[in-house]
Parts: sequence; structure tokens; C-alpha cells
Amino acid sequence: MFNAILKTIVEGTGGGIGAVLMGYDGIAIEQHFEPCEGIDLHLVAVEYANILKEIKKAAVVLNIGFMEEVSIRTERFLVVIRALSDEYFVALTLKRDGNFGKARYLLMKEAGSLREALA
Amino acid sequence: MFNAILKTIVEGTGGGIGAVLMGYDGIAIEQHFEPCEGIDLHLVAVEYANILKEIKKAAVVLNIGFMEEVSIRTERFLVVIRALSDEYFVALTLKRDGNFGKARYLLMKEAGSLREALA
Repeated sequence: MFNAILKTIVEGTGGGIGAVLMGYDGIAIEQHFEPCEGIDLHLVAVEYANILKEIKKAAVVLNIGFMEEVSIRTERFLVVIRALSDEYFVALTLKRDGNFGKARYLLMKEAGSLREALA
Repeated sequence: MFNAILKTIVEGTGGGIGAVLMGYDGIAIEQHFEPCEGIDLHLVAVEYANILKEIKKAAVVLNIGFMEEVSIRTERFLVVIRALSDEYFVALTLKRDGNFGKARYLLMKEAGSLREALA
């Protein structure tokens, strides 16, 4: 069921390449990737899990409230990450010219289903 | 001149609270903050400088291209960060319900002037 939700997110977002449901420990529960040359999207998610952990910690220390969403735009890709719980997040990678607004919308919309499926 | 540009960005963004021009070493060159209770925005930027350094490193290692923009949404705030060079970035903090699109647009638009002023 995780896979169906991730597939919905990737295919519904213009320019979507892959989505992964992952723990902050860097261990993926499920992933759905379109073929994409020259990049290991799983590795990208693992690397970002570490960074998210830091952001999460910083947000609490700084008293700016819980981290909900992080997006990172590089020369080649756009990664949008949504926190689901204290333990899990979902990360969507899209092409640089992908539909950022739709990505954020779908992640927000499907966060509930993912949380339910995790419970 | 830095201050005038930062002021333009903060005041032009609906819900803008503060902007800081900072090195990845956490040392601010200039900042412009509207009064905001219960938060030290300078500290927020310092904390994020560390995280950005990690993201920058990760982007290179992962071969996903240089980091250009990072945004972080928490329960209380929205922080939009734009890389200016290998050494400097500009971070804009806005209220959670602030105008995210306008924030990204103004940071992109003013990045050139900031880079020129830094040169």
C-alpha cells in the first residue's frame, strides 16, 4: 500500500522521478523510482536523512516549532521532503523544471494516508 | 548597500520578518530584522549555516549539482535560503502564512545585486 501512494505522488507530479518513505535512521520502508540516469536516488534520500535530523534538532533548540517541510533545489534536481512523524519522512525528487507546487500539494495531501498506513 | 537590498526583500515579501547575508562560517555580513517576539533570528541563521554546509557537501558528493535554494517550513516560520557563492548565502525568515512564492522570487531577483555588492 505504501508503494501505491508513492507511485501516485511521483506520477501525479509533473517531472517526478522518485519518492521514498524513510526513517530518520536512513532506512527506507518503501520507494518508487522512475528510471533516471547518473544518480542513485536512494543514496540521495539516505544522505538527506542525516541532514533532516540536524534540521529537526535545530528547530527544537531554536524554538521555531517542529519541522514540517524542507525543499532543496540544486543545479539538477529538486527534492521536497515532508515530515510524517517523529520517526518517518517522505522525500520526493523531481527534475529541476518539475512542478514544485504540485509536488508540495501532493505530499501534503498524501501525508495523511501515509501516516495511517504507518500506524 | 547590503542593508538596503535586505530591507527591500523583507518589506517586499508579505509576512517577511528578517533577512541576513551570511557566510557559511556563520558570520553575518549584514542583517535587517523587523521586531519579532520570542525568537533570535540571528541565531536561527547561524544554526542554519551549519546545516547548509552539510547540504552543500552532500549535493557535491551525490553529483546532483550545486545547491541553489533551500526552504524550511516549521510550525511557526518559513525560512528561504539562497546560495550566492561558495562562501555566502542570504536567508529570509517569514511568518508561516507569509508569501512563499514572493519570497523565492525576490531572493532570486536580488541575488544578482547582492553578488555584485559582495564582489
